[in-house]
Amino acid sequence: MTTNSPDFQRWTASLQAQFESRIGALLPAADIAPQRLHAAMRYAVLGGGKRVRPLLAFAAGEVTQADVGRVTIAGAAVEMIHAYSLVHDDLPCMDDDVLRRGKPTCHVEYDEATALLVGDALQSLAFQLLAEHCLADDPAAQLEMVKLLAVASGSRGMAGGQAIDLAATGQSLTLPELEFMHIHKTGAIIRAATLLGAHCGNALDPQELARLDHFAKCIGLAFQVVDDVLDIEASTALLGKTAGKDAQHNKPTYVSLLGVAESKKLAGELRADALASLEVFGPRAQRLRELADFIVLRKF
Amino acid sequence: MTTNSPDFQRWTASLQAQFESRIGALLPAADIAPQRLHAAMRYAVLGGGKRVRPLLAFAAGEVTQADVGRVTIAGAAVEMIHAYSLVHDDLPCMDDDVLRRGKPTCHVEYDEATALLVGDALQSLAFQLLAEHCLADDPAAQLEMVKLLAVASGSRGMAGGQAIDLAATGQSLTLPELEFMHIHKTGAIIRAATLLGAHCGNALDPQELARLDHFAKCIGLAFQVVDDVLDIEASTALLGKTAGKDAQHNKPTYVSLLGVAESKKLAGELRADALASLEVFGPRAQRLRELADFIVLRKF
Repeated sequence: MTTNSPDFQRWTASLQAQFESRIGALLPAADIAPQRLHAAMRYAVLGGGKRVRPLLAFAAGEVTQADVGRVTIAGAAVEMIHAYSLVHDDLPCMDDDVLRRGKPTCHVEYDEATALLVGDALQSLAFQLLAEHCLADDPAAQLEMVKLLAVASGSRGMAGGQAIDLAATGQSLTLPELEFMHIHKTGAIIRAATLLGAHCGNALDPQELARLDHFAKCIGLAFQVVDDVLDIEASTALLGKTAGKDAQHNKPTYVSLLGVAESKKLAGELRADALASLEVFGPRAQRLRELADFIVLRKF
Repeated sequence: MTTNSPDFQRWTASLQAQFESRIGALLPAADIAPQRLHAAMRYAVLGGGKRVRPLLAFAAGEVTQADVGRVTIAGAAVEMIHAYSLVHDDLPCMDDDVLRRGKPTCHVEYDEATALLVGDALQSLAFQLLAEHCLADDPAAQLEMVKLLAVASGSRGMAGGQAIDLAATGQSLTLPELEFMHIHKTGAIIRAATLLGAHCGNALDPQELARLDHFAKCIGLAFQVVDDVLDIEASTALLGKTAGKDAQHNKPTYVSLLGVAESKKLAGELRADALASLEVFGPRAQRLRELADFIVLRKF
Protein backbone atom coordinates (compact mmCIF):
# COMPACT_ATOMS: atom_id res chain seq x y z
CA MET A 1 0.00 0.00 0.00
CA THR A 2 2.78 2.41 0.87
CA THR A 3 6.51 2.48 0.66
CA ASN A 4 6.73 2.05 4.42
CA SER A 5 9.05 -0.57 5.85
CA PRO A 6 7.90 -3.99 7.09
CA ASP A 7 8.87 -2.88 10.61
CA PHE A 8 6.51 0.12 10.37
CA GLN A 9 3.81 -2.10 8.93
CA ARG A 10 4.16 -4.48 11.89
CA TRP A 11 4.04 -1.54 14.30
CA THR A 12 0.83 -0.13 12.80
CA ALA A 13 -0.83 -3.54 12.46
CA SER A 14 -0.07 -4.42 16.07
CA LEU A 15 -1.28 -1.09 17.45
CA GLN A 16 -4.36 -1.07 15.23
CA ALA A 17 -5.33 -4.53 16.51
CA GLN A 18 -4.75 -3.61 20.16
CA PHE A 19 -6.59 -0.34 19.67
CA GLU A 20 -9.58 -2.00 18.02
CA SER A 21 -9.97 -4.37 20.95
CA ARG A 22 -9.55 -1.63 23.55
CA ILE A 23 -11.93 0.87 21.96
CA GLY A 24 -14.51 -1.90 21.66
CA ALA A 25 -14.28 -2.39 25.41
CA LEU A 26 -14.52 1.37 26.05
CA LEU A 27 -17.82 1.61 24.15
CA PRO A 28 -21.00 0.61 26.01
CA ALA A 29 -21.98 -3.00 25.27
CA ALA A 30 -24.83 -3.46 22.81
CA ASP A 31 -26.90 -5.35 25.39
CA ILE A 32 -26.99 -2.40 27.82
CA ALA A 33 -30.06 -0.12 27.57
CA PRO A 34 -30.69 1.80 25.41
CA GLN A 35 -29.58 -1.13 23.24
CA ARG A 36 -30.32 0.32 19.82
CA LEU A 37 -28.32 3.47 20.56
CA HIS A 38 -25.39 1.47 21.92
CA ALA A 39 -25.43 -0.90 18.95
CA ALA A 40 -25.43 2.09 16.60
CA MET A 41 -22.54 3.75 18.48
CA ARG A 42 -20.51 0.54 18.09
CA TYR A 43 -21.48 0.36 14.42
CA ALA A 44 -20.22 3.91 13.88
CA VAL A 45 -16.87 3.41 15.63
CA LEU A 46 -15.83 -0.21 15.14
CA GLY A 47 -14.73 -2.28 12.18
CA GLY A 48 -13.22 0.24 9.90
CA GLY A 49 -11.02 3.19 9.43
CA LYS A 50 -7.27 3.45 9.24
CA ARG A 51 -7.12 4.87 12.78
CA VAL A 52 -4.76 7.57 11.54
CA ARG A 53 -5.45 9.81 14.55
CA PRO A 54 -4.74 7.16 17.20
CA LEU A 55 -1.61 6.17 15.26
CA LEU A 56 -0.48 9.80 15.38
CA ALA A 57 -1.10 9.78 19.12
CA PHE A 58 0.95 6.59 19.54
CA ALA A 59 3.79 7.97 17.41
CA ALA A 60 3.79 11.27 19.30
CA GLY A 61 3.70 9.31 22.55
CA GLU A 62 6.98 7.64 21.49
CA VAL A 63 8.57 11.10 21.40
CA THR A 64 7.75 11.61 25.09
CA GLN A 65 8.10 7.98 26.27
CA ALA A 66 4.38 7.94 27.05
CA ASP A 67 2.66 4.92 28.56
CA VAL A 68 0.84 3.05 25.75
CA GLY A 69 -2.21 2.46 27.97
CA ARG A 70 -2.61 6.19 28.52
CA VAL A 71 -2.13 6.98 24.83
CA THR A 72 -4.76 4.37 23.96
CA ILE A 73 -7.34 6.25 26.03
CA ALA A 74 -6.36 9.60 24.51
CA GLY A 75 -6.47 8.05 21.03
CA ALA A 76 -9.86 6.50 21.74
CA ALA A 77 -11.25 9.86 22.88
CA VAL A 78 -10.01 11.48 19.67
CA GLU A 79 -11.42 8.62 17.58
CA MET A 80 -14.84 9.01 19.29
CA ILE A 81 -14.83 12.68 18.23
CA HIS A 82 -13.74 11.74 14.70
CA ALA A 83 -16.39 9.01 14.41
CA TYR A 84 -19.14 11.32 15.69
CA SER A 85 -18.13 13.96 13.13
CA LEU A 86 -18.40 11.42 10.30
CA VAL A 87 -21.86 10.28 11.45
CA HIS A 88 -23.16 13.86 11.62
CA ASP A 89 -21.37 14.85 8.39
CA ASP A 90 -23.07 12.00 6.52
CA LEU A 91 -26.60 13.08 7.60
CA PRO A 92 -29.03 14.23 4.90
CA CYS A 93 -28.88 17.85 6.08
CA MET A 94 -25.08 17.81 5.65
CA ASP A 95 -23.35 15.72 2.95
CA ASP A 96 -26.24 13.23 2.63
CA ASP A 97 -23.96 10.26 2.06
CA VAL A 98 -24.91 6.59 2.10
CA LEU A 99 -21.52 4.85 2.22
CA ARG A 100 -18.76 5.07 4.84
CA ARG A 101 -15.89 2.66 5.47
CA GLY A 102 -17.47 0.30 2.94
CA LYS A 103 -20.73 0.05 4.87
CA PRO A 104 -24.05 1.93 4.83
CA THR A 105 -23.75 5.17 6.81
CA CYS A 106 -25.17 5.18 10.33
CA HIS A 107 -28.45 6.93 9.46
CA VAL A 108 -29.00 4.52 6.56
CA GLU A 109 -28.32 1.43 8.69
CA TYR A 110 -30.34 2.79 11.64
CA ASP A 111 -32.29 6.03 11.20
CA GLU A 112 -31.60 9.76 11.23
CA ALA A 113 -32.69 10.38 14.80
CA THR A 114 -30.53 7.53 16.09
CA ALA A 115 -27.55 8.76 14.05
CA LEU A 116 -27.98 12.23 15.53
CA LEU A 117 -27.94 10.78 19.06
CA VAL A 118 -25.00 8.48 18.20
CA GLY A 119 -22.91 11.53 17.36
CA ASP A 120 -24.04 13.40 20.46
CA ALA A 121 -23.34 10.47 22.76
CA LEU A 122 -19.94 9.73 21.20
CA GLN A 123 -18.87 13.29 21.88
CA SER A 124 -19.90 12.95 25.54
CA LEU A 125 -18.05 9.65 25.75
CA ALA A 126 -14.86 11.23 24.42
CA PHE A 127 -14.79 13.71 27.30
CA GLN A 128 -15.81 11.03 29.78
CA LEU A 129 -12.77 8.98 28.73
CA LEU A 130 -10.40 11.93 29.14
CA ALA A 131 -11.81 12.66 32.59
CA GLU A 132 -12.16 9.20 34.13
CA HIS A 133 -8.83 7.58 33.23
CA CYS A 134 -5.48 8.75 34.59
CA LEU A 135 -3.62 10.20 31.60
CA ALA A 136 -1.12 12.48 33.33
CA ASP A 137 0.65 12.44 36.69
CA ASP A 138 -0.61 15.96 37.31
CA PRO A 139 -4.45 16.27 37.22
CA ALA A 140 -4.09 19.96 36.29
CA ALA A 141 -2.19 18.88 33.16
CA GLN A 142 -4.99 16.43 32.42
CA LEU A 143 -7.57 19.23 32.65
CA GLU A 144 -5.48 21.03 29.99
CA MET A 145 -5.83 17.93 27.82
CA VAL A 146 -9.63 18.04 28.21
CA LYS A 147 -9.55 21.70 27.21
CA LEU A 148 -7.34 20.94 24.21
CA LEU A 149 -9.79 18.38 22.82
CA ALA A 150 -12.80 20.60 23.58
CA VAL A 151 -11.31 23.57 21.73
CA ALA A 152 -10.24 21.36 18.82
CA SER A 153 -13.77 19.92 18.55
CA GLY A 154 -15.76 23.11 18.93
CA SER A 155 -16.72 26.20 16.98
CA ARG A 156 -13.12 27.40 16.73
CA GLY A 157 -12.02 23.93 15.63
CA MET A 158 -13.69 21.03 13.84
CA ALA A 159 -17.34 22.15 14.13
CA GLY A 160 -16.29 25.61 12.98
CA GLY A 161 -14.52 24.05 10.00
CA GLN A 162 -17.71 22.23 9.06
CA ALA A 163 -19.57 25.55 9.20
CA ILE A 164 -16.95 27.17 6.94
CA ASP A 165 -17.30 24.18 4.60
CA LEU A 166 -21.08 24.64 4.46
CA ALA A 167 -20.67 28.31 3.62
CA ALA A 168 -18.07 27.48 0.95
CA THR A 169 -20.13 24.96 -1.02
CA GLY A 170 -20.76 26.41 -4.45
CA GLN A 171 -18.38 29.31 -3.76
CA SER A 172 -14.94 29.82 -5.25
CA LEU A 173 -12.34 30.00 -2.49
CA THR A 174 -8.79 31.26 -2.62
CA LEU A 175 -6.03 28.87 -1.57
CA PRO A 176 -5.62 30.62 1.83
CA GLU A 177 -9.37 30.35 2.42
CA LEU A 178 -9.33 26.65 1.54
CA GLU A 179 -6.39 26.15 3.90
CA PHE A 180 -8.21 28.07 6.66
CA MET A 181 -11.20 25.74 6.25
CA HIS A 182 -9.14 22.55 6.41
CA ILE A 183 -6.97 23.71 9.31
CA HIS A 184 -10.25 23.75 11.23
CA LYS A 185 -12.29 20.97 9.68
CA THR A 186 -9.76 18.13 9.71
CA GLY A 187 -6.56 19.77 10.97
CA ALA A 188 -7.77 20.61 14.47
CA ILE A 189 -8.45 17.00 15.46
CA ILE A 190 -5.25 15.71 13.82
CA ARG A 191 -3.29 18.26 15.85
CA ALA A 192 -5.22 17.35 18.99
CA ALA A 193 -4.44 13.64 18.44
CA THR A 194 -0.73 14.35 18.09
CA LEU A 195 -0.49 16.73 21.05
CA LEU A 196 -2.64 14.56 23.34
CA GLY A 197 -0.43 11.55 22.58
CA ALA A 198 2.64 13.58 23.51
CA HIS A 199 0.98 14.99 26.65
CA CYS A 200 0.54 11.44 27.96
CA GLY A 201 4.31 11.30 28.47
CA ASN A 202 7.15 13.53 29.65
CA ALA A 203 6.63 17.26 29.32
CA LEU A 204 7.98 18.95 26.19
CA ASP A 205 9.40 22.47 26.38
CA PRO A 206 7.40 25.19 24.57
CA GLN A 207 9.73 25.16 21.55
CA GLU A 208 9.44 21.39 21.17
CA LEU A 209 5.66 21.62 21.52
CA ALA A 210 5.58 24.27 18.81
CA ARG A 211 7.62 22.02 16.48
CA LEU A 212 5.33 19.07 17.14
CA ASP A 213 2.29 21.27 16.55
CA HIS A 214 3.78 22.52 13.27
CA PHE A 215 4.40 18.93 12.20
CA ALA A 216 0.77 18.07 12.96
CA LYS A 217 -0.51 21.16 11.15
CA CYS A 218 1.47 20.26 8.00
CA ILE A 219 0.50 16.63 8.10
CA GLY A 220 -3.17 17.53 8.67
CA LEU A 221 -3.15 19.68 5.54
CA ALA A 222 -1.21 17.05 3.58
CA PHE A 223 -3.84 14.50 4.66
CA GLN A 224 -6.57 16.69 3.18
CA VAL A 225 -4.68 17.40 -0.06
CA VAL A 226 -4.17 13.66 -0.55
CA ASP A 227 -7.87 13.08 0.29
CA ASP A 228 -8.88 15.51 -2.45
CA VAL A 229 -6.60 13.78 -4.96
CA LEU A 230 -7.90 10.35 -3.99
CA ASP A 231 -11.49 11.57 -4.31
CA ILE A 232 -10.68 12.06 -8.03
CA GLU A 233 -8.26 9.20 -8.65
CA ALA A 234 -9.44 6.31 -6.48
CA SER A 235 -12.56 4.19 -6.77
CA THR A 236 -15.46 4.06 -4.37
CA ALA A 237 -14.63 0.41 -3.67
CA LEU A 238 -11.06 1.22 -2.66
CA LEU A 239 -12.01 4.29 -0.58
CA GLY A 240 -14.93 2.62 1.19
CA LYS A 241 -16.78 5.90 0.76
CA THR A 242 -18.40 7.56 -2.22
CA ALA A 243 -15.70 8.74 -4.63
CA GLY A 244 -16.06 11.91 -6.66
CA LYS A 245 -18.52 13.45 -4.24
CA ASP A 246 -16.65 16.72 -3.81
CA ALA A 247 -17.07 17.63 -7.47
CA GLN A 248 -20.63 16.34 -7.35
CA HIS A 249 -21.40 18.65 -4.41
CA ASN A 250 -19.55 21.49 -6.14
CA LYS A 251 -17.16 21.75 -3.19
CA PRO A 252 -13.92 23.65 -3.51
CA THR A 253 -10.94 21.28 -3.16
CA TYR A 254 -7.20 21.42 -3.68
CA VAL A 255 -7.72 19.61 -6.97
CA SER A 256 -10.40 22.05 -8.17
CA LEU A 257 -8.11 24.96 -7.27
CA LEU A 258 -4.69 23.60 -8.25
CA GLY A 259 -5.27 20.55 -10.45
CA VAL A 260 -4.01 17.06 -9.64
CA ALA A 261 -0.32 17.58 -10.45
CA GLU A 262 0.05 20.78 -8.38
CA SER A 263 -1.91 19.20 -5.53
CA LYS A 264 0.50 16.25 -5.45
CA LYS A 265 3.40 18.70 -5.46
CA LEU A 266 1.83 20.60 -2.54
CA ALA A 267 1.38 17.35 -0.58
CA GLY A 268 5.10 16.64 -1.11
CA GLU A 269 6.05 20.12 0.12
CA LEU A 270 3.89 19.77 3.20
CA ARG A 271 5.50 16.39 3.91
CA ALA A 272 8.97 17.94 3.65
CA ASP A 273 7.94 20.79 5.97
CA ALA A 274 6.48 18.29 8.43
CA LEU A 275 9.62 16.16 8.43
CA ALA A 276 11.88 19.19 8.89
CA SER A 277 10.00 20.19 12.03
CA LEU A 278 10.78 16.80 13.59
CA GLU A 279 14.57 17.20 13.39
CA VAL A 280 14.79 18.47 16.97
CA PHE A 281 13.48 15.14 18.26
CA GLY A 282 16.06 12.84 16.63
CA PRO A 283 15.34 9.10 16.52
CA ARG A 284 12.44 9.35 19.00
CA ALA A 285 10.33 10.81 16.15
CA GLN A 286 10.96 7.92 13.75
CA ARG A 287 7.36 6.66 13.91
CA LEU A 288 6.05 10.17 13.25
CA ARG A 289 8.28 10.36 10.16
CA GLU A 290 6.99 7.03 8.93
CA LEU A 291 3.40 8.09 9.59
CA ALA A 292 3.95 11.24 7.55
CA ASP A 293 4.97 9.01 4.65
CA PHE A 294 2.05 6.68 5.30
CA ILE A 295 -0.38 9.60 5.14
CA VAL A 296 1.08 11.28 2.06
CA LEU A 297 1.80 8.13 0.04
CA ARG A 298 -1.41 6.21 0.84
CA LYS A 299 -3.55 5.03 -2.05
CA PHE A 300 -6.93 5.00 -0.22
CA MET B 1 -46.23 33.38 38.90
CA THR B 2 -45.57 31.23 41.95
CA THR B 3 -46.26 31.39 45.63
CA ASN B 4 -42.59 32.06 46.28
CA SER B 5 -41.61 34.95 48.52
CA PRO B 6 -40.48 38.37 47.25
CA ASP B 7 -37.04 37.58 48.69
CA PHE B 8 -36.78 34.42 46.57
CA GLN B 9 -38.03 36.32 43.54
CA ARG B 10 -35.32 38.96 44.05
CA TRP B 11 -32.70 36.20 44.43
CA THR B 12 -33.72 34.48 41.18
CA ALA B 13 -34.10 37.73 39.25
CA SER B 14 -30.67 38.93 40.34
CA LEU B 15 -28.93 35.64 39.55
CA GLN B 16 -30.76 35.25 36.24
CA ALA B 17 -29.62 38.72 35.17
CA GLN B 18 -26.00 38.12 36.24
CA PHE B 19 -26.04 34.70 34.60
CA GLU B 20 -27.44 36.03 31.32
CA SER B 21 -24.66 38.58 31.10
CA ARG B 22 -21.94 36.08 32.01
CA ILE B 23 -23.07 33.29 29.68
CA GLY B 24 -23.24 35.85 26.88
CA ALA B 25 -19.59 36.65 27.49
CA LEU B 26 -18.68 32.94 27.60
CA LEU B 27 -20.16 32.33 24.14
CA PRO B 28 -17.99 33.26 21.13
CA ALA B 29 -18.84 36.73 19.81
CA ALA B 30 -20.99 36.81 16.67
CA ASP B 31 -18.30 38.74 14.77
CA ILE B 32 -15.69 35.98 15.18
CA ALA B 33 -15.41 33.50 12.28
CA PRO B 34 -17.36 31.38 11.56
CA GLN B 35 -19.83 34.21 12.18
CA ARG B 36 -23.04 32.44 11.19
CA LEU B 37 -22.33 29.50 13.49
CA HIS B 38 -21.45 31.79 16.38
CA ALA B 39 -24.55 33.93 15.83
CA ALA B 40 -26.67 30.77 15.79
CA MET B 41 -25.04 29.47 18.99
CA ARG B 42 -25.88 32.76 20.72
CA TYR B 43 -29.44 32.60 19.32
CA ALA B 44 -29.87 29.12 20.78
CA VAL B 45 -28.57 29.98 24.25
CA LEU B 46 -29.42 33.62 24.95
CA GLY B 47 -32.63 35.52 25.54
CA GLY B 48 -34.92 32.94 26.98
CA GLY B 49 -35.39 30.09 29.31
CA LYS B 50 -36.06 30.08 33.03
CA ARG B 51 -32.46 28.97 33.68
CA VAL B 52 -33.80 26.34 36.09
CA ARG B 53 -30.58 24.29 35.91
CA PRO B 54 -28.22 27.17 36.72
CA LEU B 55 -30.59 28.22 39.53
CA LEU B 56 -30.36 24.68 40.93
CA ALA B 57 -26.57 24.94 40.74
CA PHE B 58 -26.61 28.29 42.59
CA ALA B 59 -28.97 26.96 45.25
CA ALA B 60 -26.88 23.80 45.73
CA GLY B 61 -23.79 26.00 45.87
CA GLU B 62 -25.33 27.80 48.86
CA VAL B 63 -25.39 24.45 50.68
CA THR B 64 -21.59 24.17 50.33
CA GLN B 65 -20.71 27.89 50.54
CA ALA B 66 -19.48 27.75 46.94
CA ASP B 67 -18.00 30.75 45.19
CA VAL B 68 -20.69 32.28 42.92
CA GLY B 69 -18.17 32.81 40.11
CA ARG B 70 -17.34 29.12 40.06
CA VAL B 71 -20.98 28.09 40.16
CA THR B 72 -21.72 30.45 37.28
CA ILE B 73 -19.22 28.55 35.09
CA ALA B 74 -20.62 25.18 36.13
CA GLY B 75 -24.16 26.45 35.53
CA ALA B 76 -23.15 27.82 32.13
CA ALA B 77 -21.64 24.47 31.13
CA VAL B 78 -24.86 22.69 32.10
CA GLU B 79 -26.95 25.29 30.27
CA MET B 80 -24.83 24.80 27.10
CA ILE B 81 -25.64 21.07 27.26
CA HIS B 82 -29.32 21.81 27.87
CA ALA B 83 -29.47 24.34 25.00
CA TYR B 84 -27.72 21.94 22.60
CA SER B 85 -30.21 19.19 23.50
CA LEU B 86 -33.15 21.50 22.73
CA VAL B 87 -31.66 22.49 19.34
CA HIS B 88 -31.10 18.84 18.35
CA ASP B 89 -34.45 17.74 19.83
CA ASP B 90 -36.30 20.32 17.71
CA LEU B 91 -34.72 19.09 14.43
CA PRO B 92 -37.04 17.59 11.78
CA CYS B 93 -35.65 14.08 12.35
CA MET B 94 -36.52 14.33 16.07
CA ASP B 95 -39.54 16.34 17.31
CA ASP B 96 -39.69 18.59 14.22
CA ASP B 97 -40.72 21.66 16.19
CA VAL B 98 -40.83 25.26 14.99
CA LEU B 99 -41.23 27.22 18.22
CA ARG B 100 -38.95 27.39 21.27
CA ARG B 101 -38.81 30.02 24.00
CA GLY B 102 -41.31 32.05 21.98
CA LYS B 103 -39.00 32.24 18.94
CA PRO B 104 -38.51 30.15 15.78
CA THR B 105 -36.37 27.09 16.56
CA CYS B 106 -32.72 27.25 15.56
CA HIS B 107 -33.08 25.23 12.35
CA VAL B 108 -36.05 27.38 11.28
CA GLU B 109 -34.22 30.65 11.97
CA TYR B 110 -30.97 29.38 10.39
CA ASP B 111 -30.95 25.98 8.66
CA GLU B 112 -30.75 22.32 9.62
CA ALA B 113 -27.05 21.91 9.02
CA THR B 114 -26.22 24.99 11.09
CA ALA B 115 -28.51 23.81 13.89
CA LEU B 116 -26.76 20.44 13.91
CA LEU B 117 -23.37 22.17 14.24
CA VAL B 118 -24.72 24.57 16.88
CA GLY B 119 -25.60 21.61 19.08
CA ASP B 120 -22.28 19.90 18.44
CA ALA B 121 -20.27 23.06 19.19
CA LEU B 122 -22.29 23.89 22.32
CA GLN B 123 -21.51 20.46 23.73
CA SER B 124 -17.78 21.01 23.11
CA LEU B 125 -18.01 24.44 24.71
CA ALA B 126 -19.60 22.97 27.84
CA PHE B 127 -16.59 20.73 28.41
CA GLN B 128 -14.18 23.52 27.49
CA LEU B 129 -15.72 25.70 30.23
CA LEU B 130 -15.42 22.95 32.85
CA ALA B 131 -11.77 22.37 31.91
CA GLU B 132 -10.44 25.91 31.47
CA HIS B 133 -11.83 27.67 34.53
CA CYS B 134 -10.81 26.85 38.09
CA LEU B 135 -13.89 25.30 39.71
CA ALA B 136 -12.33 23.33 42.56
CA ASP B 137 -9.22 23.75 44.69
CA ASP B 138 -8.21 20.19 43.77
CA PRO B 139 -7.81 19.62 39.98
CA ALA B 140 -8.54 15.91 40.51
CA ALA B 141 -11.94 16.87 41.96
CA GLN B 142 -12.50 19.07 38.92
CA LEU B 143 -11.78 16.12 36.60
CA GLU B 144 -14.53 14.28 38.50
CA MET B 145 -16.86 17.18 37.68
CA VAL B 146 -16.01 16.83 33.96
CA LYS B 147 -16.78 13.13 34.20
CA LEU B 148 -20.05 13.80 36.00
CA LEU B 149 -21.30 16.09 33.21
CA ALA B 150 -20.05 13.73 30.48
CA VAL B 151 -21.86 10.74 31.97
CA ALA B 152 -25.03 12.80 32.53
CA SER B 153 -24.96 13.96 28.89
CA GLY B 154 -24.13 10.67 27.22
CA SER B 155 -25.75 7.39 26.28
CA ARG B 156 -26.36 6.42 29.92
CA GLY B 157 -27.80 9.87 30.61
CA MET B 158 -29.55 12.51 28.52
CA ALA B 159 -28.76 11.18 25.02
CA GLY B 160 -29.81 7.71 26.20
CA GLY B 161 -33.06 9.17 27.50
CA GLN B 162 -33.72 10.68 24.09
CA ALA B 163 -33.16 7.27 22.51
CA ILE B 164 -35.60 5.66 24.96
CA ASP B 165 -38.06 8.44 24.13
CA LEU B 166 -37.71 7.70 20.39
CA ALA B 167 -38.37 4.02 20.97
CA ALA B 168 -41.37 4.83 23.20
CA THR B 169 -43.26 7.04 20.76
CA GLY B 170 -46.50 5.30 19.83
CA GLN B 171 -45.89 2.64 22.51
CA SER B 172 -47.72 2.26 25.77
CA LEU B 173 -45.31 2.46 28.68
CA THR B 174 -45.81 1.45 32.28
CA LEU B 175 -45.25 4.08 34.95
CA PRO B 176 -41.81 2.64 35.89
CA GLU B 177 -40.79 2.68 32.19
CA LEU B 178 -41.90 6.30 31.84
CA GLU B 179 -39.96 7.17 35.00
CA PHE B 180 -36.87 5.36 33.66
CA MET B 181 -37.06 7.43 30.48
CA HIS B 182 -37.37 10.76 32.29
CA ILE B 183 -34.68 9.96 34.86
CA HIS B 184 -32.39 9.84 31.84
CA LYS B 185 -33.85 12.37 29.43
CA THR B 186 -34.33 15.35 31.73
CA GLY B 187 -33.34 14.04 35.16
CA ALA B 188 -29.67 13.39 34.43
CA ILE B 189 -28.85 17.00 33.59
CA ILE B 190 -30.93 18.38 36.47
CA ARG B 191 -29.00 16.12 38.84
CA ALA B 192 -25.72 17.14 37.22
CA ALA B 193 -26.59 20.83 37.65
CA THR B 194 -27.35 20.35 41.34
CA LEU B 195 -24.29 18.22 42.09
CA LEU B 196 -21.90 20.41 40.07
CA GLY B 197 -23.12 23.48 41.94
CA ALA B 198 -22.44 21.74 45.24
CA HIS B 199 -19.03 20.47 44.07
CA CYS B 200 -17.92 24.08 43.51
CA GLY B 201 -17.87 24.51 47.31
CA ASN B 202 -16.89 22.56 50.42
CA ALA B 203 -16.91 18.78 50.14
CA LEU B 204 -20.04 16.95 51.25
CA ASP B 205 -19.81 13.56 52.93
CA PRO B 206 -21.18 10.58 50.95
CA GLN B 207 -24.45 10.54 52.90
CA GLU B 208 -25.03 14.24 52.30
CA LEU B 209 -24.22 13.79 48.61
CA ALA B 210 -26.73 10.94 48.42
CA ARG B 211 -29.42 13.15 50.01
CA LEU B 212 -28.69 15.98 47.59
CA ASP B 213 -28.77 13.54 44.67
CA HIS B 214 -32.11 12.15 45.86
CA PHE B 215 -33.48 15.69 46.10
CA ALA B 216 -32.35 16.36 42.52
CA LYS B 217 -33.79 13.07 41.27
CA CYS B 218 -37.21 13.85 42.80
CA ILE B 219 -37.23 17.42 41.58
CA GLY B 220 -36.18 16.31 38.09
CA LEU B 221 -39.13 13.94 37.91
CA ALA B 222 -41.48 16.55 39.40
CA PHE B 223 -40.27 18.98 36.75
CA GLN B 224 -41.27 16.51 34.03
CA VAL B 225 -44.64 15.69 35.58
CA VAL B 226 -45.43 19.41 35.75
CA ASP B 227 -44.21 19.80 32.15
CA ASP B 228 -46.65 17.11 31.02
CA VAL B 229 -49.53 18.80 32.86
CA LEU B 230 -48.63 22.21 31.40
CA ASP B 231 -48.46 20.70 27.91
CA ILE B 232 -52.19 20.00 28.34
CA GLU B 233 -53.30 22.95 30.46
CA ALA B 234 -51.21 25.91 29.30
CA SER B 235 -51.31 27.80 26.02
CA THR B 236 -48.57 27.92 23.39
CA ALA B 237 -48.22 31.66 24.04
CA LEU B 238 -47.58 31.17 27.75
CA LEU B 239 -45.20 28.21 27.28
CA GLY B 240 -43.20 29.81 24.47
CA LYS B 241 -43.19 26.38 22.83
CA THR B 242 -45.86 24.41 21.00
CA ALA B 243 -48.49 23.24 23.50
CA GLY B 244 -50.23 19.89 23.15
CA LYS B 245 -47.42 18.37 21.09
CA ASP B 246 -47.01 15.29 23.28
CA ALA B 247 -50.54 14.08 22.49
CA GLN B 248 -50.09 15.13 18.87
CA HIS B 249 -46.91 13.00 18.63
CA ASN B 250 -48.63 10.15 20.46
CA LYS B 251 -45.99 10.28 23.19
CA PRO B 252 -46.58 8.59 26.51
CA THR B 253 -46.73 11.17 29.32
CA TYR B 254 -47.67 11.24 32.98
CA VAL B 255 -51.00 12.76 31.95
CA SER B 256 -51.70 10.07 29.36
CA LEU B 257 -50.87 7.40 31.94
CA LEU B 258 -52.36 8.91 35.11
CA GLY B 259 -54.66 11.75 34.03
CA VAL B 260 -54.26 15.37 35.13
CA ALA B 261 -55.47 15.03 38.72
CA GLU B 262 -53.26 12.04 39.58
CA SER B 263 -50.29 13.69 37.84
CA LYS B 264 -50.69 16.78 40.02
CA LYS B 265 -50.88 14.54 43.08
CA LEU B 266 -47.67 12.77 42.00
CA ALA B 267 -45.89 16.11 41.54
CA GLY B 268 -46.90 17.02 45.10
CA GLU B 269 -45.58 13.72 46.44
CA LEU B 270 -42.28 14.15 44.63
CA ARG B 271 -42.01 17.66 46.05
CA ALA B 272 -42.57 16.35 49.57
CA ASP B 273 -39.96 13.62 49.04
CA ALA B 274 -37.51 16.19 47.67
CA LEU B 275 -38.01 18.51 50.63
CA ALA B 276 -37.64 15.68 53.13
CA SER B 277 -34.24 14.80 51.71
CA LEU B 278 -33.01 18.34 52.42
CA GLU B 279 -33.64 18.18 56.17
CA VAL B 280 -30.04 17.20 56.90
CA PHE B 281 -28.82 20.54 55.49
CA GLY B 282 -30.89 22.86 57.70
CA PRO B 283 -31.17 26.52 56.68
CA ARG B 284 -28.35 26.26 54.11
CA ALA B 285 -30.81 24.47 51.81
CA GLN B 286 -33.47 27.21 51.94
CA ARG B 287 -32.96 28.23 48.30
CA LEU B 288 -33.21 24.60 47.18
CA ARG B 289 -36.54 24.32 49.05
CA GLU B 290 -37.82 27.47 47.40
CA LEU B 291 -36.67 26.22 43.99
CA ALA B 292 -38.56 22.96 44.55
CA ASP B 293 -41.70 25.03 45.06
CA PHE B 294 -40.86 27.20 42.06
CA ILE B 295 -40.54 24.12 39.86
CA VAL B 296 -43.66 22.33 41.07
CA LEU B 297 -45.94 25.36 41.32
CA ARG B 298 -44.90 27.10 38.08
CA LYS B 299 -47.59 27.93 35.53
CA PHE B 300 -45.37 27.85 32.41
